Amino acid sequence: VVDRREIETRGLERVVFFSDAVFAIAATLLVIDLRLPEGLANVSDSDFNLELGKLLPRVLIYVLSFAMVGLYWLVHWVRFQMIDRIDARLVILNLLLLGTVALIPFPTALIGEHGDRPVAVVIYALTLAAAGILGPVTWIYADRAGLIRDDIPPQVVRLGTLRGMSAPVVLLGSLSLLPFVGAGWVEASWLLIFVFQGLVTRRMARFDDAAEAEPPAS
Amino acid sequence: VVDRREIETRGLERVVFFSDAVFAIAATLLVIDLRLPEGLANVSDSDFNLELGKLLPRVLIYVLSFAMVGLYWLVHWVRFQMIDRIDARLVILNLLLLGTVALIPFPTALIGEHGDRPVAVVIYALTLAAAGILGPVTWIYADRAGLIRDDIPPQVVRLGTLRGMSAPVVLLGSLSLLPFVGAGWVEASWLLIFVFQGLVTRRMARFDDAAEAEPPAS
Amino acid sequence: VVDRREIETRGLERVVFFSDAVFAIAATLLVIDLRLPEGLANVSDSDFNLELGKLLPRVLIYVLSFAMVGLYWLVHWVRFQMIDRIDARLVILNLLLLGTVALIPFPTALIGEHGDRPVAVVIYALTLAAAGILGPVTWIYADRAGLIRDDIPPQVVRLGTLRGMSAPVVLLGSLSLLPFVGAGWVEASWLLIFVFQGLVTRRMARFDDAAEAEPPAS
Amino acid sequence: VVDRREIETRGLERVVFFSDAVFAIAATLLVIDLRLPEGLANVSDSDFNLELGKLLPRVLIYVLSFAMVGLYWLVHWVRFQMIDRIDARLVILNLLLLGTVALIPFPTALIGEHGDRPVAVVIYALTLAAAGILGPVTWIYADRAGLIRDDIPPQVVRLGTLRGMSAPVVLLGSLSLLPFVGAGWVEASWLLIFVFQGLVTRRMARFDDAAEAEPPAS
Repeated sequence: VVDRREIETRGLERVVFFSDAVFAIAATLLVIDLRLPEGLANVSDSDFNLELGKLLPRVLIYVLSFAMVGLYWLVHWVRFQMIDRIDARLVILNLLLLGTVALIPFPTALIGEHGDRPVAVVIYALTLAAAGILGPVTWIYADRAGLIRDDIPPQVVRLGTLRGMSAPVVLLGSLSLLPFVGAGWVEASWLLIFVFQGLVTRRMARFDDAAEAEPPAS
Repeated sequence: VVDRREIETRGLERVVFFSDAVFAIAATLLVIDLRLPEGLANVSDSDFNLELGKLLPRVLIYVLSFAMVGLYWLVHWVRFQMIDRIDARLVILNLLLLGTVALIPFPTALIGEHGDRPVAVVIYALTLAAAGILGPVTWIYADRAGLIRDDIPPQVVRLGTLRGMSAPVVLLGSLSLLPFVGAGWVEASWLLIFVFQGLVTRRMARFDDAAEAEPPAS
Repeated sequence: VVDRREIETRGLERVVFFSDAVFAIAATLLVIDLRLPEGLANVSDSDFNLELGKLLPRVLIYVLSFAMVGLYWLVHWVRFQMIDRIDARLVILNLLLLGTVALIPFPTALIGEHGDRPVAVVIYALTLAAAGILGPVTWIYADRAGLIRDDIPPQVVRLGTLRGMSAPVVLLGSLSLLPFVGAGWVEASWLLIFVFQGLVTRRMARFDDAAEAEPPAS
Repeated sequence: VVDRREIETRGLERVVFFSDAVFAIAATLLVIDLRLPEGLANVSDSDFNLELGKLLPRVLIYVLSFAMVGLYWLVHWVRFQMIDRIDARLVILNLLLLGTVALIPFPTALIGEHGDRPVAVVIYALTLAAAGILGPVTWIYADRAGLIRDDIPPQVVRLGTLRGMSAPVVLLGSLSLLPFVGAGWVEASWLLIFVFQGLVTRRMARFDDAAEAEPPAS
């Protein structure tokens, strides 16, 4: 008889590596839009530098989107270290998450070129919020379906949900400012996501240390 | 003497990860065609929104194609959890499957831009049906060559074939409607694939539960 | 003390998966050039089909290039199942191989668009021959550096080299026909690669069976 | 109770494979800019060859950038064989490294098209130096945080830092020559990186041999 457990582990590994590939490709495709227009071969150096300068907003949005994909990957990485079984529903929820992550190059290109238009800001925030919300959704599902390791204390599970919500909350909340402060300030407010993440990470680390010092009864 | 078994396992793992990479890249490349035309920097907001609206069919076909690649990956994932040996012929059949999966971005771009033309509908359906048929073909080959785990009951093997056929059957069947109902309805009918998949998944889950309750004699 | 052996195995695995990723991306990027020109939204159906027909050579070259990358991956897969140690030189030779494989989308796009020009045929054949030759080069190096498993009989090692040479020999040999028969026939002659591969595979299988029936003294 | 050690190993593996995917995609995307302009279908063979000849600088920069990504991957590969634990900070530093590696296709395209402009040379050197510096930064952090294997002698750790610095030092140093010798010579000077790497590799091999001959007390 084949070892069921071993097969499940292999199946879980494959989901994780497939996810890694999608995250990695989405993150790396972001750079494709970072390019100069054609026909600059014969312009003067100062005109050339001017064109380069116009790329700056795209470089900034590249940095932001890479950081967001990196953050979502990091949270996925943390979560799947705490998940030790998998079922078809979790795989499908994970595919939904990957489908929105794979979409991120589109709003990135959109906001890189049209960052001053409110509709571009809305589409960017909605896409990234959707990808962000699907993280806690898979996490809550995994918790209810009993796919999370037994030795994870309930506070860590709850913090895992909270952590995942900070990005969507900031993204959606920022949209409410759009009519008052303009696209640029809304985009700047997204940096709060990384501040919140830092705070939750520090809190989780404290639980982690506590868990190491005093392991839960098993 | 080196452990033959261990080497075979490593070889199988590599086939699986190579497949994962091709699926992931094919799925993520789909987004590349989701872009606005050049030269919208100075148009009015309402004209800009009009151009954005024209992207909607492409967003829908992105969702469909991502779901199809995701479905084919999911079925591949289920199958290779039940396969525990590999030979050169299975690798070649798997490469054929990957070659058609890697082709999917082409009909996706075609139908995204020309979804009202019957020929685009035909090419999309044929490509995805080809990728879909090669799934059960590898599965039937693996069964005949004795590469499937011994503890998989024959009903599950047969259901595995049936499940793989539902997508090609819907895709090819839908083409027969093309002369009567127009491209849009044919495209809508493809959603049936996911309904069928849900039904087969539920049936397989029942066998799985039965298998867990009462393991096969070994 | 950490287990040196285990670390070497992990290092080998990482080389293999990195290679898989490069092969997979090179194979999947081939499809990017398979696209219709812009501005066909309002042409008649028959003009549209004419444009689609013009894509046929690109579809054929896609199939050929995917088959070549698939073949090179398959040979790489077979080889690295027989390699069980790795050193920095083998990694560097492998990177050279991957660098030429990653280049394949370029001659593929070139020959897809300009397949009637002899220079396109020459560049395609040279690039693929270079990628092909680097396979046996890594193999011969691995043999001399003692990185191949001890239980592989010398005939299999020699056949492994021979197998790898068939693609470069056909590709380079075909170029000698170019002045006499034209680009189309040269391209057709490349199908011989797959015939030769089939023959060598069959011969290797025979050795494999023999090895299984009568294992080498250890 | 779940084995903490095993979970950490899986977490480390996932970081490594995610990194591999980003390196592989960045390396393979470089080829995308290697293409002829449109509209050469009807030009004479000599004009066509002229256009092909104009691609030569892009082929050279492809080779250089692929070699640089390959080098950074190789150093990453060597380093992570010596790292056997991971924490969130190392993951974030690694993400920063990957973010700059994923950016490499941009300066590659820039210098491929505008290699005669000093600003292109500066941007290329700065991007690659940034990616290069983040290697030793992660390495030094891993050393301080005690994430490196206990059996690695301190000299090897120091050489690992030194090795990582050679690329950024050459790249940044070469910029000081830019006002005097022109873009071409600066670009040529970058080949020194590979000379330095060869020297450090040889030195590390000597330590490695010594370590094998006389294992450190444990």
